[in-house]
Amino acid sequence: MGIVLHELVGTDKSRPFSPHCWKTVMSLAHKGLPFDRNAVSFIDIPKLENGYSAKVPVVRDGEKLVADSFDIALYLEDHYPDRPSLFKGEGGRAMARFVEGYSQMILHPFLNLVVLMPVHDVLDTPNQAYFRESREQIFGRKLEDVAADRDSKRDAFTKSLAPIRKMLLSQPFIGGETPLFGDYIIFGAFQWARVLTPYELFDEGDPVADWFERCLDLHGGIARKVLAAA
Amino acid sequence: MGIVLHELVGTDKSRPFSPHCWKTVMSLAHKGLPFDRNAVSFIDIPKLENGYSAKVPVVRDGEKLVADSFDIALYLEDHYPDRPSLFKGEGGRAMARFVEGYSQMILHPFLNLVVLMPVHDVLDTPNQAYFRESREQIFGRKLEDVAADRDSKRDAFTKSLAPIRKMLLSQPFIGGETPLFGDYIIFGAFQWARVLTPYELFDEGDPVADWFERCLDLHGGIARKVLAAA
Repeated sequence: MGIVLHELVGTDKSRPFSPHCWKTVMSLAHKGLPFDRNAVSFIDIPKLENGYSAKVPVVRDGEKLVADSFDIALYLEDHYPDRPSLFKGEGGRAMARFVEGYSQMILHPFLNLVVLMPVHDVLDTPNQAYFRESREQIFGRKLEDVAADRDSKRDAFTKSLAPIRKMLLSQPFIGGETPLFGDYIIFGAFQWARVLTPYELFDEGDPVADWFERCLDLHGGIARKVLAAA
Repeated sequence: MGIVLHELVGTDKSRPFSPHCWKTVMSLAHKGLPFDRNAVSFIDIPKLENGYSAKVPVVRDGEKLVADSFDIALYLEDHYPDRPSLFKGEGGRAMARFVEGYSQMILHPFLNLVVLMPVHDVLDTPNQAYFRESREQIFGRKLEDVAADRDSKRDAFTKSLAPIRKMLLSQPFIGGETPLFGDYIIFGAFQWARVLTPYELFDEGDPVADWFERCLDLHGGIARKVLAAA
């Protein structure tokens, strides 16, 4: 029995968008492991695998279930040690947690604004109702009002990419000469936006955009095959 | 012939303050290597070791000279492989560049404001003249005017520590269970402020402050021995 990845979609099952699920797609591809993709909507997640997890990605590997993109990467690293490494050692494993902190606390808040209405718009009616209610409870405002802050915050977002730009002066990937899970953490965040909206995340000539393009080329272009939103 | 660290000081040679030099102090202590410290003022750096480097730290190890705190860490890692590792593998080595990017591009701009006048005030007259002229050229404003932005930018600085806070939910150090060079990169930035000014960098109860205290305890408390500025 092969590996199954349960991942989030809207009405178009061929356009998965969750940043966390994309981290896992890239992790599985990096390890060279074949896997089947099972498309799940927001409201179907709680029923998945007998209620195993409140969130996706969830990976089933034979009898074993693992949730959370970081835990899945650790699982793959430990259970497939002869495949290409996702961390290249104990230091890389620990420091990927710092990249995760940067991605989730610095990048995600802005990207959330960018994708909020686009996510809503790719869902069917029952999922739209769930999404609107749960998100409006978190933000304490209407989706449309939250999303309206997008343009005024774009400059700060561009500035907040400076750590990536500085790192790229030393090496082509966060993992060094070749990518590691740290790259996929940030890649997933940008791919989330790419799949959902034509909104331009990067200024022209930004080296971060070049790095993102390099990631889209990885593993047979598995992430590029889902075309950018038009 | 032992290792010599050339490091930046003001009039009080017992209170080195450069963030980059502190990274190297911690790197040498981490490796358990004995070293002598040679105090240098700003205007003496160009004459150091026959003009070897425009900046400190510079480390002399026998006949070998190395400048730049990251390059010194790499040198120590490669030349003292049997000592405790500063990177724990290739992934850790690469990802420390990302931590460096975050420290220099996100933390340093604010910390620069915090220490600008305090650095000026610990220098002798010729070094004050050099410091004021070179920094006012960079900023295009009077030192006093640049430093005045400090309080209005403190909230954004506090928010910008979120990646560290998130990482600390998973582990006590950037390096995992124990510190690595990635910890010393950010430690050096905060120690710069600690040695120069009593200005409170952290809000009460901030877990980042707890991490900083843990770093001050490392290696026999080598960094704590220089008391916080009063």
